Amino acid sequence: MTGVFDHPWLSGLFADGEIAALWSAEAQLAHMVAFEAAWSRHGHLAGLWSRAEGASAATAIEAVSLAPEDLRDGTAQDGVCVPALVRLLKDRTRESAIHTGTTSQDVIDTATVLSLVPSLQVIEQRLVTLDDALRDLETRFGDIPMMGRTRMQAALPITVSDRVQTWRLPLETHRDRLAQLRPRVALVQIGGAAGDRAALGDGADAMCTAIAQELGLGTSPRAWHAMRDGLAEAASTLSLITGTLGKMGQDICLMAQQGIDEITLAGGGGSSAMPHKQNPVQAELLVTLARFNAVQLSGLHQALIHEQERSGAAWALEWMLLPQMVQATGRALTGAVDLAGQIVDIGGTKN
Amino acid sequence: MTGVFDHPWLSGLFADGEIAALWSAEAQLAHMVAFEAAWSRHGHLAGLWSRAEGASAATAIEAVSLAPEDLRDGTAQDGVCVPALVRLLKDRTRESAIHTGTTSQDVIDTATVLSLVPSLQVIEQRLVTLDDALRDLETRFGDIPMMGRTRMQAALPITVSDRVQTWRLPLETHRDRLAQLRPRVALVQIGGAAGDRAALGDGADAMCTAIAQELGLGTSPRAWHAMRDGLAEAASTLSLITGTLGKMGQDICLMAQQGIDEITLAGGGGSSAMPHKQNPVQAELLVTLARFNAVQLSGLHQALIHEQERSGAAWALEWMLLPQMVQATGRALTGAVDLAGQIVDIGGTKN
Amino acid sequence: MTGVFDHPWLSGLFADGEIAALWSAEAQLAHMVAFEAAWSRHGHLAGLWSRAEGASAATAIEAVSLAPEDLRDGTAQDGVCVPALVRLLKDRTRESAIHTGTTSQDVIDTATVLSLVPSLQVIEQRLVTLDDALRDLETRFGDIPMMGRTRMQAALPITVSDRVQTWRLPLETHRDRLAQLRPRVALVQIGGAAGDRAALGDGADAMCTAIAQELGLGTSPRAWHAMRDGLAEAASTLSLITGTLGKMGQDICLMAQQGIDEITLAGGGGSSAMPHKQNPVQAELLVTLARFNAVQLSGLHQALIHEQERSGAAWALEWMLLPQMVQATGRALTGAVDLAGQIVDIGGTKN
Amino acid sequence: MTGVFDHPWLSGLFADGEIAALWSAEAQLAHMVAFEAAWSRHGHLAGLWSRAEGASAATAIEAVSLAPEDLRDGTAQDGVCVPALVRLLKDRTRESAIHTGTTSQDVIDTATVLSLVPSLQVIEQRLVTLDDALRDLETRFGDIPMMGRTRMQAALPITVSDRVQTWRLPLETHRDRLAQLRPRVALVQIGGAAGDRAALGDGADAMCTAIAQELGLGTSPRAWHAMRDGLAEAASTLSLITGTLGKMGQDICLMAQQGIDEITLAGGGGSSAMPHKQNPVQAELLVTLARFNAVQLSGLHQALIHEQERSGAAWALEWMLLPQMVQATGRALTGAVDLAGQIVDIGGTKN
Repeated sequence: MTGVFDHPWLSGLFADGEIAALWSAEAQLAHMVAFEAAWSRHGHLAGLWSRAEGASAATAIEAVSLAPEDLRDGTAQDGVCVPALVRLLKDRTRESAIHTGTTSQDVIDTATVLSLVPSLQVIEQRLVTLDDALRDLETRFGDIPMMGRTRMQAALPITVSDRVQTWRLPLETHRDRLAQLRPRVALVQIGGAAGDRAALGDGADAMCTAIAQELGLGTSPRAWHAMRDGLAEAASTLSLITGTLGKMGQDICLMAQQGIDEITLAGGGGSSAMPHKQNPVQAELLVTLARFNAVQLSGLHQALIHEQERSGAAWALEWMLLPQMVQATGRALTGAVDLAGQIVDIGGTKN
Repeated sequence: MTGVFDHPWLSGLFADGEIAALWSAEAQLAHMVAFEAAWSRHGHLAGLWSRAEGASAATAIEAVSLAPEDLRDGTAQDGVCVPALVRLLKDRTRESAIHTGTTSQDVIDTATVLSLVPSLQVIEQRLVTLDDALRDLETRFGDIPMMGRTRMQAALPITVSDRVQTWRLPLETHRDRLAQLRPRVALVQIGGAAGDRAALGDGADAMCTAIAQELGLGTSPRAWHAMRDGLAEAASTLSLITGTLGKMGQDICLMAQQGIDEITLAGGGGSSAMPHKQNPVQAELLVTLARFNAVQLSGLHQALIHEQERSGAAWALEWMLLPQMVQATGRALTGAVDLAGQIVDIGGTKN
Repeated sequence: MTGVFDHPWLSGLFADGEIAALWSAEAQLAHMVAFEAAWSRHGHLAGLWSRAEGASAATAIEAVSLAPEDLRDGTAQDGVCVPALVRLLKDRTRESAIHTGTTSQDVIDTATVLSLVPSLQVIEQRLVTLDDALRDLETRFGDIPMMGRTRMQAALPITVSDRVQTWRLPLETHRDRLAQLRPRVALVQIGGAAGDRAALGDGADAMCTAIAQELGLGTSPRAWHAMRDGLAEAASTLSLITGTLGKMGQDICLMAQQGIDEITLAGGGGSSAMPHKQNPVQAELLVTLARFNAVQLSGLHQALIHEQERSGAAWALEWMLLPQMVQATGRALTGAVDLAGQIVDIGGTKN
Repeated sequence: MTGVFDHPWLSGLFADGEIAALWSAEAQLAHMVAFEAAWSRHGHLAGLWSRAEGASAATAIEAVSLAPEDLRDGTAQDGVCVPALVRLLKDRTRESAIHTGTTSQDVIDTATVLSLVPSLQVIEQRLVTLDDALRDLETRFGDIPMMGRTRMQAALPITVSDRVQTWRLPLETHRDRLAQLRPRVALVQIGGAAGDRAALGDGADAMCTAIAQELGLGTSPRAWHAMRDGLAEAASTLSLITGTLGKMGQDICLMAQQGIDEITLAGGGGSSAMPHKQNPVQAELLVTLARFNAVQLSGLHQALIHEQERSGAAWALEWMLLPQMVQATGRALTGAVDLAGQIVDIGGTKN
């Protein structure tokens, strides 16, 4: 188990069940099947087959039951799961109005977006929840004085609100960013073999629109196969969010130090050697996840150099990084909400 | 000379004169002095001194002639240049209505923004120029067939337009991003010693507005001392831009290979060993700068973990990275425009 | 499933069964149990309990059957799995000569090393295998001329050997690096609560030596709790290896282009849209894994800033990154060996 | 001025005069000229020209006076400075036994190594100096008790030595690493146009040995043009060193907090807003430089994917990153030595 998000015990610390469900292999497979069904159903708009043939195939595709493991050998062989998926769908349905005119990248990118978009919605909701929790802290403790600290040295007294607002105010901005990002990334991918929708002829626009509508996504004037800036921007936004939370976590770790004593947390992690000790586990986790995302982000931006009509190398790098970044962001938000709830006292000038 | 942008000969390849001028030490110093003059001039709005005292100091500050080197020893001593700057301004002007109520970070962050904002404008203009140049390519060559290549293998024929649009379409999106970013980053920094504008009392808003107006910037409800998401988002946007250009550069390097022969470039770099050889230097440079920015971006996001009211460590990391990212982006754009102009033939099916 | 190495179908492309087994949750759990048993068995050397008590506990610990999932709730609570593990061991064995004097980090770090060290051995063996495969290529094809290409332009003719040696020669150097690294990283971690082995008194050295010997590891003069350079160096070496293989993969992708035709690969990945197409999947994968490790490496080096006697934040970042880097390296090596075996023709001057 | 190391005032904080001199444009130019002179002098060993012709050219080359700026236009044109350099040397000397058989990368890579190798020596000496300074601290304060802190929480008492040894012990290991690295990186680069030394015939070995000897470097069985693992390993080692120092800096920042009061520093940085404040500038700088190098390292490892016989893109990325990493490492060491000297009191249990 090389991944902390799926690990039998580390998932206890790192996993975010809601986000994990959105990116599960089962969900990804369902998204790919949904794309293939929509493709069959609307293929007649581009003259790929008759409406009836497409409808029959779509219905049949939706009835097929596949296990994620069924795609493993094909992925090992082809480097992508879609050839195996298409073979299975054709074998199981005995239909032929399947997949013609599209390509692996259409299927996988659209499936990724179908996991990403609701993840961003979950993240947006949690930003609101966290904002509320921090406002509540301000209401309860905001006027309490505490020492302002610059360059890790006592500077001048501030209030709890002054500190908490540096955690809270960016949350609103992040929501603006998510709203602006959404139309740039909530896009069906339809390009076909070489990314130019050549197989769809004059019906391309109608077919793209119908599929996008069925899947709850938008369309772009041409396929974004080789233009990955939407995904990299999404990754940037995720890392901006975890960065804000990492700052909150770092601050709370510093506030919780004996000798500083600016915060009292209920709960906290136990130690195997010192049972009395309360480690600020959630706060540390926010720092970890922020640094993790700041690292991964670099890879998503390296993957912008996506050569020609499809880069196998850059594309697979996205597969390795993006799901982890989403999971890390989701977890950071649940952690931050929990942490805000653990604060039973904050501020004061104990030293 | 550890930096390629300022290097006696490497600057021939890497430097962008227009951007360099915006970030020169002289420009930075002028920005800091402009902030200090505005501070003096409007300090009466927060009761720091009388209008007359402030006006006198402002005029005097603006008349002082300083050399960047004058701040070196003070920076070595204090870790920031502002204490030395303030000492010099007070010494030279014999005025006292200077700097009280503000702090180093106000001065330096505002100066940074005063270099960043016009840099983003230059970048935006160049995005338009490059867009035009690529549209021109499409007009001239767009219908010419060429081989579409996926996973570095010949796939199916496309047209030159299909390829060029993957370079061009993101440029429009980048301009949208810049427009959305602008109000989040074109902000004066005013927080004072502990970031809470405590020294300004009820006059804080009026004073902030007046200073921002004088400097051509916006204001934020509170100082962004410890909330660095605007800068990190700016860095993300820069890296998105260079990523798009890096993809263009990588494509052109691949197209220019002997045996592929999909592009003919006028000019190109000479070789010391093979005088006949024409190296696609500008195209390679786009790849280099994209990877460079993708690397640096990670550091700007690490710097989001800006502890307490001011992190000396995270702040100085921004100083090391952001100016280089802006310069790399500016240079990538001039390089891409040059490269587009070097294309004398593109497309065709020579093999 | 956020991780490609454990994913039901992506594992077909990314997983390395042999390395995966060394890092499985079951293996990690077994390592932790082995450490705890050794601790009990040799604790009498530091006067923690009698030899008989320790031996009894050790035997009992070794007989306990635990499932990885048993540690999940405890990890969620404490941020580390060891408090839960110790509770379970004590409950199940009814022994008391358990864990006293050691701490979570001792257990987890030692378990990590017990996965890392055999991983490095596997990697070393595969470096030899790959070296042999490449030597074999040189024997068969080495004298064949091919075009030397600099800056992606035809330069002057070279031979196949000239190209293949740039893939092969660093493999020997990597083996030297692994040999030099080994004594710096194959070290038991024993520090106790605050890292100073205080609980072990004068028996510390004897006890550390006995435990290290039992686990097949070396000892260091003091705990490396807060000195993570060995792990970061290991990560660096892994990334150096994948970098060499990424260069090989990139070269082969370029050689396999239509129009270049410098290599013929048997096998290769199928396309869902173009059944005739043979994608150089293994070669692309080497590039992906090299860029992945180059990204992750940054995080391992960020984690060197491991504050005080134990950094929860930096430590957990290592958990997120190191196992993935090892897996990526292992997989890159199997991929490179496979790829070398797929080469049925190389070199020649077809254009 | 986009680089902090060369900036008129930021150099006061960031620059390392001794390292800067080793990497100055003048030094780089001198190294390139030295290579060209050695090439001329020993070219007769490979039959490139007669001994007399080569000696005459070498002497003439060594007498030429060039300014770094002379290479700027040529670099802008060719993407590398060497064609311009060779033109100038030929023009000024009127000799012809110049450069034939070698290439830009030979000249530039060798010049880089000629800056890097003495830099590593300086770094090694400073590791000793810092080791001594920390041993001295241990002698003076080592037995003083202080609170051991794990996960930023008070754990159990330790001594000052326990803490200081986590800063000091890795320094010895770093020296071992440097010694092991040296023969892998202190290598002349000689490959010629396509990296195979083809122009040198049977005399290649003799000529390489003679040039290496003259320049104080070693030789490798073939050119390392396209095998960059030595440089990337050097970068890794630099980042390991700054990581250790960053941990020391972070610890000292934490120790210097009011309320913790575990250390007293003489000197420290002044504040423009709070004249009484003493900022732990050197300690923060160590954190900054460690994070900086951890970021840059990623780029050096990306550059391992150096395609074919010479990658313009990957090579130029090294130019952007490596000199900065060396400078950052040198500066971190002078900063750490200074910081150790600023410690007037350490340890104790004030709270």
